[in-house]
Amino acid sequence: MNYATLSALISTRRSFLCVGLDTDVQKIPKGISPLAFNKAIIDATRDLCVAYKPNIAFYESMGVAGWQLLKETMDYIGHEHFTIADAKRGDIGNTSAQYATAFFDHYAFDAITVAPYMGHDSVAPFLAHPDKWTILLALTSNSGAEDFEQLPVVQRSGTTAPLWQEVIERSAGWGGPDNMMYVVGATRAEHLGHVRRLIPDHFLLVPGVGAQGGSLEEVARYGMNKDCGLLVNASRSILYASSGSDFAEAARAEARRMQASMAALL
Amino acid sequence: MNYATLSALISTRRSFLCVGLDTDVQKIPKGISPLAFNKAIIDATRDLCVAYKPNIAFYESMGVAGWQLLKETMDYIGHEHFTIADAKRGDIGNTSAQYATAFFDHYAFDAITVAPYMGHDSVAPFLAHPDKWTILLALTSNSGAEDFEQLPVVQRSGTTAPLWQEVIERSAGWGGPDNMMYVVGATRAEHLGHVRRLIPDHFLLVPGVGAQGGSLEEVARYGMNKDCGLLVNASRSILYASSGSDFAEAARAEARRMQASMAALL
Repeated sequence: MNYATLSALISTRRSFLCVGLDTDVQKIPKGISPLAFNKAIIDATRDLCVAYKPNIAFYESMGVAGWQLLKETMDYIGHEHFTIADAKRGDIGNTSAQYATAFFDHYAFDAITVAPYMGHDSVAPFLAHPDKWTILLALTSNSGAEDFEQLPVVQRSGTTAPLWQEVIERSAGWGGPDNMMYVVGATRAEHLGHVRRLIPDHFLLVPGVGAQGGSLEEVARYGMNKDCGLLVNASRSILYASSGSDFAEAARAEARRMQASMAALL
Repeated sequence: MNYATLSALISTRRSFLCVGLDTDVQKIPKGISPLAFNKAIIDATRDLCVAYKPNIAFYESMGVAGWQLLKETMDYIGHEHFTIADAKRGDIGNTSAQYATAFFDHYAFDAITVAPYMGHDSVAPFLAHPDKWTILLALTSNSGAEDFEQLPVVQRSGTTAPLWQEVIERSAGWGGPDNMMYVVGATRAEHLGHVRRLIPDHFLLVPGVGAQGGSLEEVARYGMNKDCGLLVNASRSILYASSGSDFAEAARAEARRMQASMAALL
């Protein structure tokens, strides 16, 4: 799915919601299989969101069966949504190429999240796939972002900037707004305006609204660009809105609440 | 497997060789299944190495079948070798916990490689597993290490040091030499002495000898400590020493050559 198609979806559905499929066997209602749970969540939210983001760790932790579940979930989503493998992969070139094959070719994702630590040749194999997207971690929503992402680094120009800024500035030339996005956490809304000045045209994938406490209004105020340029993710607040047999209705109500807020902000 | 057991294995086998199982369906001899290939490589190298390191990307790229292959490969390795999931995972806490479950519980690895970018709470869930190891990326062997790992950062003390040094110094207190190791590439041998002064007691996992061109002698000279403290990995140079039906004999010859060099260095 390309930039224009994704932007058109946002405009048509009046939503920039990404539903994170963090399917946790400990949390889904008793007596429901993970696949039935995913299908019910997808059916309940399909018209309210533009993207789905399976969190690969939750599938990987189920062993071989988890990968079958991922494949069947991807088949069920179909082609009317942007799909993100939240995998945070990244390795030397020949190995990143294998990860790209796995997620882009085997599971047919549109996009994958990638960790920047190992630098350009660890990211390039993902960018080499035409019509696919690389979503690079910049400033994440967790407390550990203080440890390294926020550290001041001395840039080539001699000025000092946080590491996440250097990651954005250095990597922005590796691809373009049509094949790269950046992860910027909603819990860092005060930095979103800064990010937007650095990369006015890139999509941002924003986790941290919902269970992690970020504000949708602040994200839109500081992060939106002329085409919207945002995908705001919610996972637990939608998936586990109810732990009972009404989980799908509760998920729809929460997704509907977020979509209505988004429509007002667009 | 704990520190003492691993060190005893190195002493007994006179080897600190880790065989990287980067099993590439494009490269293994025609007519041999990936599982038969892995079993033949393991049989050919079992007495010459102390560790096996499946490179998870190569299994992931095979889809569901790849995870079955990984499981069967782990079962075949057994418990007389240290096992490393070369996965370079790392995410917010609840997600890293799922990755830890996958590799430590489901596939029974002793250790996993982890990317440090997201900071402490992305690493802590791996360290929470007793008798398991977290191997943090510090200074990798690829050209992209120049992009961010080598960048000068301003440390809390006000002094400037490369990011990889800050990663080591900051994270060394998150665990100890009995549950943490660091990745330092053999192509950066000039930095190994520096690493050793920072962390005299930790094991280092050293890729980059073999296909990537690093020198075993230099790694030993600068990186060894009183208990050895090194695991030197070779993948392609052993697995694909021959592309013919004699691949296992050729793999053994190459592993034997490395083990003999290691015995002389111990």
